[in-house]
Amino acid sequence: MGIVIDAALIDSRIPAAVDAELTRVFDTRRPDLSRVGPEFSEAVAELEAFALRGGKRLRPTFAWWGWRGAGGDPTDPRSEAVLRACTALELIQACALVHDDLMDASDTRRGHPTIHRVFAARHRELGWQGDPERYGQASAVLLGDLALAWADDLFRAAGLDAGAAVRGAAVWEQMRTELLGGQLLDVITEHRGDESPEAALRTARFKTAAYTVEHPLLLGAALADGAGPAGGAGDDADGLDRAAVEAAYRRFGADVGVAFQLRDDLLGVFGDPSVTGKPAGDDLREGKRTLLVALALEAADEKDPAAAETLRSGLGRTHTRTEVDELRGHLVRLGAVDAVERRITELTRSGLAALDGAPLAPAAVTALRALADAATARTS
Amino acid sequence: MGIVIDAALIDSRIPAAVDAELTRVFDTRRPDLSRVGPEFSEAVAELEAFALRGGKRLRPTFAWWGWRGAGGDPTDPRSEAVLRACTALELIQACALVHDDLMDASDTRRGHPTIHRVFAARHRELGWQGDPERYGQASAVLLGDLALAWADDLFRAAGLDAGAAVRGAAVWEQMRTELLGGQLLDVITEHRGDESPEAALRTARFKTAAYTVEHPLLLGAALADGAGPAGGAGDDADGLDRAAVEAAYRRFGADVGVAFQLRDDLLGVFGDPSVTGKPAGDDLREGKRTLLVALALEAADEKDPAAAETLRSGLGRTHTRTEVDELRGHLVRLGAVDAVERRITELTRSGLAALDGAPLAPAAVTALRALADAATARTS
Repeated sequence: MGIVIDAALIDSRIPAAVDAELTRVFDTRRPDLSRVGPEFSEAVAELEAFALRGGKRLRPTFAWWGWRGAGGDPTDPRSEAVLRACTALELIQACALVHDDLMDASDTRRGHPTIHRVFAARHRELGWQGDPERYGQASAVLLGDLALAWADDLFRAAGLDAGAAVRGAAVWEQMRTELLGGQLLDVITEHRGDESPEAALRTARFKTAAYTVEHPLLLGAALADGAGPAGGAGDDADGLDRAAVEAAYRRFGADVGVAFQLRDDLLGVFGDPSVTGKPAGDDLREGKRTLLVALALEAADEKDPAAAETLRSGLGRTHTRTEVDELRGHLVRLGAVDAVERRITELTRSGLAALDGAPLAPAAVTALRALADAATARTS
Repeated sequence: MGIVIDAALIDSRIPAAVDAELTRVFDTRRPDLSRVGPEFSEAVAELEAFALRGGKRLRPTFAWWGWRGAGGDPTDPRSEAVLRACTALELIQACALVHDDLMDASDTRRGHPTIHRVFAARHRELGWQGDPERYGQASAVLLGDLALAWADDLFRAAGLDAGAAVRGAAVWEQMRTELLGGQLLDVITEHRGDESPEAALRTARFKTAAYTVEHPLLLGAALADGAGPAGGAGDDADGLDRAAVEAAYRRFGADVGVAFQLRDDLLGVFGDPSVTGKPAGDDLREGKRTLLVALALEAADEKDPAAAETLRSGLGRTHTRTEVDELRGHLVRLGAVDAVERRITELTRSGLAALDGAPLAPAAVTALRALADAATARTS
């Protein structure tokens, strides 16, 4: 039973293994940086701190379990290549966050100043010339680019088998393009003043669900070679019913992924700053066009024009604590919070249902259920 | 002699072949875009127009000749994969330009409005909400990211042989990292107010020379498999003296690449707007810390304090035509223009000397000489 214990142990340490792999990547690149100049090394040290400070490693974890569900064996030496490919997702995430924070003009992320703010502050401290904000902006653009380039480098050099590399690349390509499309839709929706629930859901679908859950799972499945038992009713030549696995991941990913975004939307308005790492009501200041806000505006237009007025004029501005509380009060009273909670419950349920009867390794089903609960529960 | 004629014909059509390949990439991706939404397709159409409007295809051309010089045979069917890999350089270039224009707040590029300006103008036309500049900025960040991601996709899917893919990836990785480091150094040098000729040369080295000439040539050499005759004194097992080829490319690339940047610096101040695609004296407005400016300041500090004052206060501002002429006059009178011209001549000469006796295919030597002349000549 030694192998079973090892597998469970490896499975339980994925976030730590991702951190170790990220550290290795930054270590490996140090000579490339210092050849350009010490200023480059110092700047990338901020990116490294940012990436290593990072959260729950949700995307690599989903990718790992996507692979495990499709029959991946963590005790197989080739699992190291899979872990590296999964870790590459965190470098894409670093790019997405650094660039998103710049575009949203956010001050804090993960309880620390955002990258563009760090470099603007450094410019001020050193008494440099020109505009500190422009310097911060340029630094954030270039460090985000670097994270994106290194994500590709890591994915390419992960050491995957030829078949896994080709199957994985197809998902990898689609994922990055859809992520950038989702980010662009988000920006357009906000500037166009599109208040419809449909627009909010479409952004959640492409910007978050596809990229956080669905594509990582599909990437994991693509990296599995079907040589091992999927633990279920695999029925094609190589013991892996790839179509059935992918169908289950797509539905689970789309539903649980959107539920995750809706939970994040609620936390962005009502969450505890010590947990979210962002100031209270930060999403209101940014004027994010979430389903929560869309449903509230829809209801207000129908039955409470004064509340609609308050909400519309209050989105996208900075607020006093009292104003944040007033806006929150409207979102609750208009029934938007309850409606979003219901939607989260429904989506989580239908997402989990996709796992029933799918030809997935039992350990992965258990893990995916737990991940879905953790990502969508009220106190995450 | 049919094969010889074919080869010369293929060689002569590289820029057109790069354009065709870029068109194919954007065509292939259209379904991915429309799945996200028509807004995404419309935005990427601007990136496509930008990429296809683009210049001389200098980087793919150097990469092609780097491959040819190392024995690559254009009549070999595998040359199509090499062309695709070379074309990927133009997508990196699209990212670099879109993000550079954003960071420099440039209005025009290649005779058209820059990407961030295009989207800011669209925001205004449509009467959208919020700040048009922020919308333009976000669009430029995301479209630049997309170009960078697609560059990797194209390189990965080029269809290279396994050995060429691995050798090429090593250059590809270093190139992107050094390019981003060079861009960062450029930004830091400017904000730090570093006026030294050394800082200007270091930026030219990493931001331009490495990325425009040296790395493309090394990439081309990496893609050659040594199976064909290098046309010279190849002396290792597979008929390609890789070390000698790389040494020649490094020296040629560093010297001609810096000379190219110095020529570009002169054109940025003295060039004809109808040729450069940018307003007269645009580099002065941007306050670029070029060798030209560094040498002028050095000379002015020594012998003409009033000119030093005028130059320092004039860099990084917008100017009237008269002011541009005054600044130009100082650069000439202080001897900086002559000094830069001399440096261009010396660097071009030493770069070309690196080709002498190197084990390169004769057609490539001829082509590289012509490219060096075209990239560094007064009227380019």
